[in-house]
Amino acid sequence: MRKGIDTELFLQVKKQQWIGEGEQILLALSGGADSMYLLYFLKELQNHLSFSLRAMHVQHGIRGDEAVEDATFSRQQAELYQVPFLEYTCSVPDYAEENKLGIEEAARTLRYKALKEEALRWQEESGRKTKIALAHHMDDQAETILFHLIRGAGFSGISGMKAEGIFSEVQDKLNKDATDIAMNKTKEGNQEDCIPLLRPLLFLRKEEILKRLEELEIPYREDSTNRDKSYARNYLRLEILPALEKINAGAVKHLLEAAELFSETEAYFQEKTAEWIERYGEWEQSSRGKCISLSIPQLKKENALFRREIYKEAIFLLRGNTTEFGKLHYHGIDRLLKRGNGGRLSLPKGVKAEVEQKRLLLEKF
Amino acid sequence: MRKGIDTELFLQVKKQQWIGEGEQILLALSGGADSMYLLYFLKELQNHLSFSLRAMHVQHGIRGDEAVEDATFSRQQAELYQVPFLEYTCSVPDYAEENKLGIEEAARTLRYKALKEEALRWQEESGRKTKIALAHHMDDQAETILFHLIRGAGFSGISGMKAEGIFSEVQDKLNKDATDIAMNKTKEGNQEDCIPLLRPLLFLRKEEILKRLEELEIPYREDSTNRDKSYARNYLRLEILPALEKINAGAVKHLLEAAELFSETEAYFQEKTAEWIERYGEWEQSSRGKCISLSIPQLKKENALFRREIYKEAIFLLRGNTTEFGKLHYHGIDRLLKRGNGGRLSLPKGVKAEVEQKRLLLEKF
Repeated sequence: MRKGIDTELFLQVKKQQWIGEGEQILLALSGGADSMYLLYFLKELQNHLSFSLRAMHVQHGIRGDEAVEDATFSRQQAELYQVPFLEYTCSVPDYAEENKLGIEEAARTLRYKALKEEALRWQEESGRKTKIALAHHMDDQAETILFHLIRGAGFSGISGMKAEGIFSEVQDKLNKDATDIAMNKTKEGNQEDCIPLLRPLLFLRKEEILKRLEELEIPYREDSTNRDKSYARNYLRLEILPALEKINAGAVKHLLEAAELFSETEAYFQEKTAEWIERYGEWEQSSRGKCISLSIPQLKKENALFRREIYKEAIFLLRGNTTEFGKLHYHGIDRLLKRGNGGRLSLPKGVKAEVEQKRLLLEKF
Repeated sequence: MRKGIDTELFLQVKKQQWIGEGEQILLALSGGADSMYLLYFLKELQNHLSFSLRAMHVQHGIRGDEAVEDATFSRQQAELYQVPFLEYTCSVPDYAEENKLGIEEAARTLRYKALKEEALRWQEESGRKTKIALAHHMDDQAETILFHLIRGAGFSGISGMKAEGIFSEVQDKLNKDATDIAMNKTKEGNQEDCIPLLRPLLFLRKEEILKRLEELEIPYREDSTNRDKSYARNYLRLEILPALEKINAGAVKHLLEAAELFSETEAYFQEKTAEWIERYGEWEQSSRGKCISLSIPQLKKENALFRREIYKEAIFLLRGNTTEFGKLHYHGIDRLLKRGNGGRLSLPKGVKAEVEQKRLLLEKF
């Protein structure tokens, strides 16, 4: 166990410049251990750094009385800390049914949505930069990585949550869970619409946070749904990860290191493919929509993996995200190169791929 | 469940050209379900392709009478199939103690060692190309990937076993488990010493193999150590993987897809860094040993991840493997760039890194 997580966290916040002078921080406060620690820490941080802090509690309407008590507790604690408090109530079950989502995913989507709307409102009101602070920690991160790994995902999925993410309007909220949305870098997004997400606790173990709360005698609520093993992510966190740590004591740490490698790899490919497209791609805007054309002879000089990464980046540039696109689509596009002139392929979300002479056209209608 | 795994396997062997006319195949025959199916299949294959087949059973000296019965069973079955049979007996517990290895790792190392020596002997005797056939299947592969992921590994570790590998003398047998050894591509290895490994069953689920054996009424032995959950890999296979498949029915498939992506990524970096070294690196051979020098101004133009991959490749070129090298060492080398002229670092296995003017020297004494 490391000593002095407050100090460690303080140094990280400073070093990474997560919070700037005069900025506004909207803390997602569930009343659970992690967000209670983050509330305590941010309040302490205000002694050293001048920024505004508000706490928001999202009531999911899942657990009846217990949920009402969580909200009351969060409000009381925020008042105790003299932090302005907001409560947002929604009905996750209804939303899940309407959008054919699992309860966990629906809850996450709605929570992020509410936080983001509130952050945007606050930002517009004051004209000051506003960020959302989330209390995810290292154990949550390991769970996320494993979850995406077994669900099937490219590098972006398995690279985990970012300590600094962007939550953008450009992303398609309903088709990808908010974790992914936060991870995707936006290139075309209107800067105004981008609310940065901060996850300052990502380098801390749950155990360390609990120990510190005990030392500080800070109370917190235990969310009974967090212990319900019928939820996939809870099962991963409560059963699988401890079992993996029994096999290898460093399992969580190693999963995180792997995720960091994936994240760096993703960034590497994004940088290199963007350079490639800048060099060998051409943009066309027609009445039908946007189109990006790529040189086939140049594509053929590249490694197959790199070619698929080029297609992914091109679609990202066309659409602002790659939601609903996967390995199979990129392989499909790649097969067009062999088919030659006239080959065409319909892809999700109105994207089409077509070969015209020595160019591969990717179009969005 | 797919139909006709015999046919599917036959088509794969043909398409991938795993076995060439006139080659010699040494099958690792434990007497378990997987290797019994492979014995049956290879014997059938001889009706379509002319190659020599021998079976070898490695007796680990772990399970007393049971082990003797396995050996007897394997011999009887090989005789039934009219396949020449060899038995090799060793003492895994002694070897494990001497080399400070776990029982599983010691067994694996000794098994590969015995198989390889026998394959080399057979190859020298006849002058014909000899390959080792192993009966690893898709469930073994998922277990391997997860094992390496939680143990901490770069792309090479988590890219899983290869259907076609090379088992080379150049590799340091004691420091890396044989799975890794098989995965590493050798560049400097004497071609004579390289025994290719084949894992033709890698795309089949355990369940499919068992079902087919039942149809064929082929008997097999159950190795009680395979059910012993105190062994890390058994625990992963018997407990963790089924649990992950309960969360996501495609978990094993998705793990394998991820591993394929890692494998392709590893190959990509290997290709690109080798090209880079060809261009910006210089070889020097002194009385002290071998040395490769890299241009620092060119290194500084590269992405940090790519730079670390360059160091890895350079060390591979120097030593023939990267055993005992890890992320921390590559980061250490990278920090020398900032320190400038005169900076130096001692690395494992007699490798040194040093900055001389605008070159980074990697030396092996």
